[in-house]
Amino acid sequence: MYKSEIKVIDCTVRDGGLMNKWQFSDEFVRNVYKSLVEAGVDYMEIGYLSSKSAFDSKEYGPWRFCFEKDLQRIIGEEEKGLKLSAMADIGRIEYEDIPLRSESSLDMIRVACYVHQVDKAIELAHHCQEKGYETTINLMAVSTVGLRELNEALEDLDKSKVPIIYLVDSFGAFYSEDVDALAAKYVERLPEKRIGIHCHNNQQLAFANTISAIINGIEYLDATLYGIGRGAGNCPLELLLSFLKNPKFKTRPLIKCIEEEIFPWAKKIDWGYSVPYMITGVMNQHPRTAIAQMESANKENITAYYDGIVDELEPS
Amino acid sequence: MYKSEIKVIDCTVRDGGLMNKWQFSDEFVRNVYKSLVEAGVDYMEIGYLSSKSAFDSKEYGPWRFCFEKDLQRIIGEEEKGLKLSAMADIGRIEYEDIPLRSESSLDMIRVACYVHQVDKAIELAHHCQEKGYETTINLMAVSTVGLRELNEALEDLDKSKVPIIYLVDSFGAFYSEDVDALAAKYVERLPEKRIGIHCHNNQQLAFANTISAIINGIEYLDATLYGIGRGAGNCPLELLLSFLKNPKFKTRPLIKCIEEEIFPWAKKIDWGYSVPYMITGVMNQHPRTAIAQMESANKENITAYYDGIVDELEPS
Repeated sequence: MYKSEIKVIDCTVRDGGLMNKWQFSDEFVRNVYKSLVEAGVDYMEIGYLSSKSAFDSKEYGPWRFCFEKDLQRIIGEEEKGLKLSAMADIGRIEYEDIPLRSESSLDMIRVACYVHQVDKAIELAHHCQEKGYETTINLMAVSTVGLRELNEALEDLDKSKVPIIYLVDSFGAFYSEDVDALAAKYVERLPEKRIGIHCHNNQQLAFANTISAIINGIEYLDATLYGIGRGAGNCPLELLLSFLKNPKFKTRPLIKCIEEEIFPWAKKIDWGYSVPYMITGVMNQHPRTAIAQMESANKENITAYYDGIVDELEPS
Repeated sequence: MYKSEIKVIDCTVRDGGLMNKWQFSDEFVRNVYKSLVEAGVDYMEIGYLSSKSAFDSKEYGPWRFCFEKDLQRIIGEEEKGLKLSAMADIGRIEYEDIPLRSESSLDMIRVACYVHQVDKAIELAHHCQEKGYETTINLMAVSTVGLRELNEALEDLDKSKVPIIYLVDSFGAFYSEDVDALAAKYVERLPEKRIGIHCHNNQQLAFANTISAIINGIEYLDATLYGIGRGAGNCPLELLLSFLKNPKFKTRPLIKCIEEEIFPWAKKIDWGYSVPYMITGVMNQHPRTAIAQMESANKENITAYYDGIVDELEPS
């Protein structure tokens, strides 16, 4: 399906870094960057934009912060071959720590928020726009948001100056029918905005739901190499680019980068479909218990894990 | 989605056996059988129905043949808790080796065929019906069948006495839009039949495409525990049963069986999403080259594998 409006955002370093505290080597990040440029990907989300005071830089790698000196080490002297994005969490970045776009290698700042933080997110995004950046607001965990609350949030977002609003399936809980219904609502309630989608793969539906989103008029598509990301991971970029028929997209550079950079990490960290992630997806829960299960010595004791989750849901 | 007409067929032993020549222990098969009964699954496809002369029983385990003595060892003395199915390939089973249903523990024989074998498949299925069995015809590799050929095959199948016809995505090549289009065609051209679907997971779409099939009126759904099966594997049964809202279905017995029986096999054989399977899926090719790649010492050399596949497609 060739739609010229479609933009693909790779989140390999940003979302993958949730699994290893962004301890990627410069060589890794540089190789991902070059591969994405060659593949024709529109944006690379290289990390989170955080204030130095928000995290311990001894514990977290550079892509938890996205300081300009680190960005420059990756892109080098030549002109950038794609746009760079960073994600900002409410409360982890001081306004004064955000450089002007004219002094930064970043092009876009995406503000992630829960529904109760929409006002703060709009304020932060407006601030970033004033500094020259493209912006999005990524409304997380929509699968847990009530109808009235969602309508109010969309009304606020509609009135904002933020041009791109994301539908985020944080828990990997959506079926294609949910995406159909929500995408239709976002498109209807946000007539002046462009809509994006970010899926998680708890039920092996991240790619399928991204396709459903495209069919429903969503234009900004998040994905990662080989699906790397927290827990069950994300929509695999190599699948998405193979599906999109836009001739500018090329799959081979992604396959080469998976072979060289992602396979070694796949031996060290554990992402992708597994039963605990499936259970939190089906139950529409945050994956934190599943992540704890997968990091424990008993990660294969999935029946006991299931029983624990179900017991919690029993009326007491 | 609760549709009372829906039947779920587990193919764990039959399709999983393609990865280990059906060398499952009796304990494995018995545990799978009991778990499926407890989970409310309608059919268990326990293997292939083959003549003794078709394969060497020293090389292949009992579920390559499905002899009655082996079936009885699994189900024991008690009444069966679900229906048992076996798959028959054209040319690998002599008619005289098929027992009467009244003398067999099998309930259903599913005849797999390519489009050029439809007439032979109908003849074999009719023979099985005369012996008392429920029957299906599973038309494989539909993604490679031309329009005229498919129309002719569906016409022949429509005229047959076989009550259930399967749409089979042997190469894992379909997107949901393909399933929409083909399911609509099958339903329209086969108004007296019930339709089934069997998906492969090359593009992480087996479960999503099974959901699309349900939405389009398909009622017989194939799946396997944890997606075990040839190459990229199948639609995971635990996901499918979690999606279906029929109260008779239970997920816990499946999770327990995955923990006890499937995890040990996952350490010995290699199925599920990987780049070579994705490539044959995207290219709409038989997975044989991907299987060879995954069994080779160089299975991670995916760029060279990709280049080999693309080179073959170049005009010469």
